[in-house]
Amino acid sequence: MQIHERMEAVVEIVKGWKKAGETVAFVPTMGYLHEGHLSLIRTGFQHADRVVVSIYVNPTQFDRSADLQSYPRDMESDAALCEREGVDLIFTPTNTMMYPEHYRTYVHVETLTERLCGATRPGHFRGVTTIVAKLFNIVQPDVAVFGQKDYQQLKVIERMVEDLNMPITIVPGPTLREDDGLAMSSRNARLTPEHRKAAPGIYAALQSCIKAVEAGERNVDTLISDTRKMIMAAGAKRIDYIDIIEANDLMPLRALDNRPAQMAVAVFFGDVRLIDNVSLYRP
Amino acid sequence: MQIHERMEAVVEIVKGWKKAGETVAFVPTMGYLHEGHLSLIRTGFQHADRVVVSIYVNPTQFDRSADLQSYPRDMESDAALCEREGVDLIFTPTNTMMYPEHYRTYVHVETLTERLCGATRPGHFRGVTTIVAKLFNIVQPDVAVFGQKDYQQLKVIERMVEDLNMPITIVPGPTLREDDGLAMSSRNARLTPEHRKAAPGIYAALQSCIKAVEAGERNVDTLISDTRKMIMAAGAKRIDYIDIIEANDLMPLRALDNRPAQMAVAVFFGDVRLIDNVSLYRP
Repeated sequence: MQIHERMEAVVEIVKGWKKAGETVAFVPTMGYLHEGHLSLIRTGFQHADRVVVSIYVNPTQFDRSADLQSYPRDMESDAALCEREGVDLIFTPTNTMMYPEHYRTYVHVETLTERLCGATRPGHFRGVTTIVAKLFNIVQPDVAVFGQKDYQQLKVIERMVEDLNMPITIVPGPTLREDDGLAMSSRNARLTPEHRKAAPGIYAALQSCIKAVEAGERNVDTLISDTRKMIMAAGAKRIDYIDIIEANDLMPLRALDNRPAQMAVAVFFGDVRLIDNVSLYRP
Repeated sequence: MQIHERMEAVVEIVKGWKKAGETVAFVPTMGYLHEGHLSLIRTGFQHADRVVVSIYVNPTQFDRSADLQSYPRDMESDAALCEREGVDLIFTPTNTMMYPEHYRTYVHVETLTERLCGATRPGHFRGVTTIVAKLFNIVQPDVAVFGQKDYQQLKVIERMVEDLNMPITIVPGPTLREDDGLAMSSRNARLTPEHRKAAPGIYAALQSCIKAVEAGERNVDTLISDTRKMIMAAGAKRIDYIDIIEANDLMPLRALDNRPAQMAVAVFFGDVRLIDNVSLYRP
């Protein structure tokens, strides 16, 4: 396994693979890897001969500098985990390489980015689409894997790739969960023991919502209100948003009908913001 | 020579060339080709084995729909000219292919796009960078040629390519001129005979400004004011802008010093807007 922070090295290595007829899967990450990331890496190997992982805590997607500063990092552990999974190359660019002094260019997906996480994190998705476009141009993958845990991000990236005609297939990876149901996230490490115990209440509430739909409930307001109550009762400090949305354009649904529906939530436990989502209904 | 409007056809053809070890130059155009475009095509062949020309009047870069409607078109002549130059492939996408119903993604270069043409044509450069990013992703060229006549556009594209780490070399092509000095442009065809006779006054004024610099004039206000007077005296209806700028970041210079300086103008003759630029000083 190679680790490079210079993009020129990455470009040369990938060029060599392609010349040899090999395909490349890419898993962009912000590091502090957990089982969820490893699952994305395994998905990558199902679709390509080589897997490239990037580890980069991208400053342009953080709306609060405190969140950027406190984002957990552990390069040594990340490298060991990648090595064990058979990753071929880790790309670890620096801020001055990614955003040099005269940097001016941003990629922005409209509409899809304005609600949910976009409403309370201004500029977040513009930062995500910009860095992902940059990384795609450097790594030149055939396939890129994005987790369904960040559902809105997945849909925004899919739209960017289609709109800008990028020659890349986006493969979604399923959300991995701890035994108690909490969606795996690097941010979980920042939960207090008490909040860590309470946070599985998010998924329990989402599961309860799925059951209500299965039992015939079609009223969106009722479903949201009941789920909200359960999450607050579990000990959440505040719910950033809780929405039932059309699964592709992310617009809020007024009623469950014949369109695919997703429930998406963002919840604060203490000062740690956790997100999760489930499919409520697929036609 | 092949002509395709389907991007899938273009992708396949280019893939074949690359597999055979051939390199690809790309010349994006809005059609109504003249000697200036043909010069860009010849520049393309100096840098690559194959040349792809796109002909697409991109609606997102027109700020006035009247300008879009009246933009001249002549596909038959364009195809004949490309054939004669040995162009390998013409790509003629349609609006519904480039901007389908759910289209949402835009590429934007900040700062560089806010002045000069950007000040009076809101959204113009966002449209340019977006369509060029799309075309680059479809055509996957090694080299792309852009004319220096559209100086700000050239600098904006160079910045986008560098910022987004696109694996493409941008090659500038010199401005071609009619015998009387008027910069070649598809828009010249829309000038009345009287305005056509008067329009070479733009380049004459720019030449006169160069001579003044050579004679030792360093005062930017004097240079601009004298050039403005000459252009108006030649019969211009209105000057949109006339500026002396640093040649790379396009910021206005207060004095000619040791930095490369460019004079750029946009001038209306009747309702036709013409642009031109010259290098005043290169260290």
